[in-house]
Amino acid sequence: MTGTRGRPRNPEADRAILRAALDLFVEGGVEGTSIEQIAKRAGVGKLTVYRRWDSKEAVLAAAIESARDEIPETAPTDVADVPVATLIRQLLPGLAEAIAEPRLRAMIARVFGASVSHPELMATYWENYVLPRRRITRALLERAQAEGTLAADADLDVLIDMMVGAVLFRLVQPEPLDAAGARAYLESVYRSAGLLGGPE
Amino acid sequence: MTGTRGRPRNPEADRAILRAALDLFVEGGVEGTSIEQIAKRAGVGKLTVYRRWDSKEAVLAAAIESARDEIPETAPTDVADVPVATLIRQLLPGLAEAIAEPRLRAMIARVFGASVSHPELMATYWENYVLPRRRITRALLERAQAEGTLAADADLDVLIDMMVGAVLFRLVQPEPLDAAGARAYLESVYRSAGLLGGPE
Repeated sequence: MTGTRGRPRNPEADRAILRAALDLFVEGGVEGTSIEQIAKRAGVGKLTVYRRWDSKEAVLAAAIESARDEIPETAPTDVADVPVATLIRQLLPGLAEAIAEPRLRAMIARVFGASVSHPELMATYWENYVLPRRRITRALLERAQAEGTLAADADLDVLIDMMVGAVLFRLVQPEPLDAAGARAYLESVYRSAGLLGGPE
Repeated sequence: MTGTRGRPRNPEADRAILRAALDLFVEGGVEGTSIEQIAKRAGVGKLTVYRRWDSKEAVLAAAIESARDEIPETAPTDVADVPVATLIRQLLPGLAEAIAEPRLRAMIARVFGASVSHPELMATYWENYVLPRRRITRALLERAQAEGTLAADADLDVLIDMMVGAVLFRLVQPEPLDAAGARAYLESVYRSAGLLGGPE
């Protein structure tokens, strides 16, 4: 990771810094965040932050990276015998809970907002959150094609954008979804993409 | 509109203020914008701004509203005899040009970024940009259902989210689209939604 200096000397301070950085980013975006505020909220001196990272952007990228485990996987990888529709139905509740989480929603909105002025933050998000899930989803769609539930000539990259994009777009719309609403919404997205077939 | 005071006394100053506000918003988001900066860039005094709007958020909402004509309509409304696929093919070049425009891309990213901390800006964007186009798109999808190219039980709201969401998501991804790429992308989105049928 660029912008990181040396080995962590104090993992506990690092965790407090990353947590404070992510909170400030969620509250005020890149422009509403400063190294001073991060240090203050983490309860450390500015030098402690600068000893590890050389800019607020570098701290924010590390903070975004460190939060990646808060989103569940979009698909298990080792269940080749289970039909895709069944797999998706198993994943729905966990995914719905994750996307109904206000903090995740806020972080995603902020990453999007920063995409133009700070493409390196979007790149970090992209590499840590989007690409791994995209690879798994692509494999799932290829299996659906093999099963015959999805057209053989479907544009898989665009279909993934449509599914993910719908959810991301819905998340920033007025009137947020609760977990039950998120589940119904996800189900309709997967069904519209041709991945769920008829009712269970 | 909330936050606006009285009638415009100086339309030229108003235009300069709204333009400066939108530029600053695109460059630095809500948090990176202040009334002082807006006044300075517009070449007016702070009081001139405060005489018309009571907060930077109110100026930004008016600025977002004022830029709505920069996006072309997603569909003409008075061509009931033309098949949906033909209509969409006619609209594609203009839409592609609009979404390849860096300034529009940046504004959308910023509105999304502000959606959590400043829902009133998203509400302004929603009302002025999204809802009018959504109504037109919905009518188009209902015609496609009547024509039999779209399933009668399709979830139209989710389908609109998938089409719009894909484009918005693509706009903030690394490696921006040029006009030709945007056109190919839009075409694939409309085709994946079942609205274009086979090749022309």
